[in-house]
Amino acid sequence: MNKIYIVGIGPGSSDYLTKKAIETVKNSDITVGSERAIKLFDEIQEKISFNVKDLVEKLEEAVELAINGSTVSILSTGDPGFSGVLKTVLRIADEKGFNKENIEVIPGISSLQLAAAKNHIQWDMANVMTFHGRENIEDILPVINNGKTTIALPSRKVKDMAQFLLDNNVNPNRKVTVCERLSYDNEKIVHSTLKEIANSEFTYMCIMIIY
Amino acid sequence: MNKIYIVGIGPGSSDYLTKKAIETVKNSDITVGSERAIKLFDEIQEKISFNVKDLVEKLEEAVELAINGSTVSILSTGDPGFSGVLKTVLRIADEKGFNKENIEVIPGISSLQLAAAKNHIQWDMANVMTFHGRENIEDILPVINNGKTTIALPSRKVKDMAQFLLDNNVNPNRKVTVCERLSYDNEKIVHSTLKEIANSEFTYMCIMIIY
Ligand SMILES: C[S@@+](CC[C@H](N)C(=O)[O-])C[C@H]1O[C@@H](n2cnc3c(N)ncnc32)[C@H](O)[C@@H]1O
Ligand SMILES: C[S@@+](CC[C@H](N)C(=O)[O-])C[C@H]1O[C@@H](n2cnc3c(N)ncnc32)[C@H](O)[C@@H]1O
Repeated sequence: MNKIYIVGIGPGSSDYLTKKAIETVKNSDITVGSERAIKLFDEIQEKISFNVKDLVEKLEEAVELAINGSTVSILSTGDPGFSGVLKTVLRIADEKGFNKENIEVIPGISSLQLAAAKNHIQWDMANVMTFHGRENIEDILPVINNGKTTIALPSRKVKDMAQFLLDNNVNPNRKVTVCERLSYDNEKIVHSTLKEIANSEFTYMCIMIIY
Repeated sequence: MNKIYIVGIGPGSSDYLTKKAIETVKNSDITVGSERAIKLFDEIQEKISFNVKDLVEKLEEAVELAINGSTVSILSTGDPGFSGVLKTVLRIADEKGFNKENIEVIPGISSLQLAAAKNHIQWDMANVMTFHGRENIEDILPVINNGKTTIALPSRKVKDMAQFLLDNNVNPNRKVTVCERLSYDNEKIVHSTLKEIANSEFTYMCIMIIY
């Protein structure tokens, strides 16, 4: 009661759910998440689904429900603490005067980790950057030539990110791997070069690795 | 057959095992790991345990077993790709001529992620650093005053790391949180200051957060 769990669900397939995520959702009065996220759980009580457009509204509703006594799970792709929903929930809780000690974050496998795993990258030695929902794309320039592999969540289309690097004199022959829809049935991993990627189409669900 | 899985087991408690980790171990002919790691799995076939001293020897044995036709799981704390066993296994595979395409990494929840989660930290905006098993402790100095929170896996004792920062003129009143034995029954999270931490004793299983 009066409790919010922010539950990481991993990159998409239910294979990456933790026992803790499964148990937490099972024991929550209400679970709030995207349709896709909710579908991963076999045992779930009441559910509220959101989409990109009404996300904030539904998160506000979730916090209200917790204030009124419910135990609420909010589902987040990957790890809630890596470019995830954590910050937004903390802000709403603050606005509504919900005690932050009653918010618990359950970490999940980030898409970044699966991208690194699939490519045998030791990511503590990589430049790990997220540009998702931010306007800080030029932050990549100071590190792109520092000798480490860069793993990035692009802010816009992958091809635009590649073009941005080309426009900033990064070598067009740099090896690039794009990991699309990781852990889904239609997962695609493409090994290519910067100049080729600048001419390729991908969906938004991509991680870019620049060697 | 002829396959090696490097399986992330999370920070310690079985709560953080993923379905994928459980299934992979269940279906492996042989599972190699520390006693502590092996105990987390209910369904396991043949097992080989290692300790700090015979780790490399046992990893070599694991690769040999895979070369001879077995499906072998190697258990790694946290995420194998974050300061984990990945690099060592890749080196041994290389030396023994084991085809790297037959190595699959299963990501796990890193202790870093649980430390961030417990403290409501959005870690894509933090300095994330590992000094475990390395001699690069001075790499922390260029970032320690950059305005971001620093999450670090210390190289030696926490108190030595704190003393190193004090010796390098970091403000003694900086807020520090130490997360010890995360997810274990005797988990301990201490909120303190740099100068206090330099006089405190902790075990080796710690994450340090410097605000
Ligand atoms: C709002 S961020 C969420 C990141 C998430 N918290 C995590 O830890 O993976 C969304 C971005 O994550 C990346 N992403 C999430 N799931 C993915 C997947 N299954 N495959 C590839 N990229 C993914 C994409 O870059 C996407 O634009
Ligand atoms: C060889 S590293 C392994 C890191 C691991 N691959 C991960 O992703 O968490 C070992 C270090 O990880 C940290 N660590 C691992 N498990 C921990 C736990 N349960 N609580 C606190 N720190 C932990 C400690 O700093 C320890 O010295």
